[in-house]
Amino acid sequence: MDSTTCLAIAKEQGFIPYALSFDYGQRNNYELESAKKLVNAFQVLDHKVIQIDLRAFGGSALTDTIDVPKDTEFESNKIPITYVPARNTIFLSFALAWAETLNAYDIFIGVNALDYSGYPDCRPEYIKSFQNMANLATKTGVENELQLTIHTPLINLTKAEIILKGIALGIDYSLTHSCYDPSEKGQPCGHCDSCQLRLNGFLETGYKDPLKYQD
Amino acid sequence: MDSTTCLAIAKEQGFIPYALSFDYGQRNNYELESAKKLVNAFQVLDHKVIQIDLRAFGGSALTDTIDVPKDTEFESNKIPITYVPARNTIFLSFALAWAETLNAYDIFIGVNALDYSGYPDCRPEYIKSFQNMANLATKTGVENELQLTIHTPLINLTKAEIILKGIALGIDYSLTHSCYDPSEKGQPCGHCDSCQLRLNGFLETGYKDPLKYQD
Repeated sequence: MDSTTCLAIAKEQGFIPYALSFDYGQRNNYELESAKKLVNAFQVLDHKVIQIDLRAFGGSALTDTIDVPKDTEFESNKIPITYVPARNTIFLSFALAWAETLNAYDIFIGVNALDYSGYPDCRPEYIKSFQNMANLATKTGVENELQLTIHTPLINLTKAEIILKGIALGIDYSLTHSCYDPSEKGQPCGHCDSCQLRLNGFLETGYKDPLKYQD
Repeated sequence: MDSTTCLAIAKEQGFIPYALSFDYGQRNNYELESAKKLVNAFQVLDHKVIQIDLRAFGGSALTDTIDVPKDTEFESNKIPITYVPARNTIFLSFALAWAETLNAYDIFIGVNALDYSGYPDCRPEYIKSFQNMANLATKTGVENELQLTIHTPLINLTKAEIILKGIALGIDYSLTHSCYDPSEKGQPCGHCDSCQLRLNGFLETGYKDPLKYQD
């Protein structure tokens, strides 16, 4: 949901999008199927799916054999067990490599500091610091006057604001996928943190979530 | 040669090493075979080889169909075609993820700013910036008082100084591999930038390079 809205905003702002997905051994592998449908809907110029095995390191309920917590009281200022070590740093590093070969100066990422303030790599200070590093890391940053920018259009939006923005931009949220722990057929559980944030967000907007949940 | 010397220095300093190698579609895949022999010789606690496909993006003579330059006058202040976009950023990001799951606070990387000053991601200002970012990116950096450090013991050494240091620490450089474009059997070419830097380094020390070169 966040990545899709981020993509729609980049297009609205006049950028020509290339899309990058990661197959990182996540439980919610259905999000990759969703991604393929979405990049078609948005006519992105190129879509790459990078295989990386974060299970090699473990340490997260999203990639490990640790259970995904259900119906927990969501504490936005605590780092949850679904945090994947250094995940956004790895994602942004690959985006940086691709941007450099494309001569692109703009990277968009749908991180959100409000709902996920427990994830250190979703905070504005982290993003700013990655951007500084990226401009020192690359040929692009060193040889050109143009500086590379990490855009985070959702960073200060609530889930409800993200949904309203996306609906205004014509997103079909039935194509999106948010659950951390879907059934074998890809049906969302409705009880993990990600489902709860999504459902509460829709509730606030007054729109109905088009996804069919288990139970 | 640089990674091995870096590992030997980390051990000398009292660190208990875990080793990380990358299979990134490089032409010089023989370096992975060397890595396996070396981690045995150094009795590292664990060695992981991460598969990442940097060929997906292209843009470098090391991963692409572009020819590796031979017998060129080495210009240390120019970014060479063997530069792999954002390579060290991707490597360090994976190291960061593993460090976090190990509760480790020290990452060693054998970058060198003198011989390779043409590579933006080998410069001290880049490393410092990555370290800042890493401390904002992770649970480790956010929840603990201990800060993560990126160690670069070779950054200001010449190739000859690296070799002398390694010999003093008992490294068998016949196990190391430096060539960007070895033969099918893994024999170094002797003519790419990396071979030339290595051969000149040995020449300066007065020691003979134990590797057998083509020709």
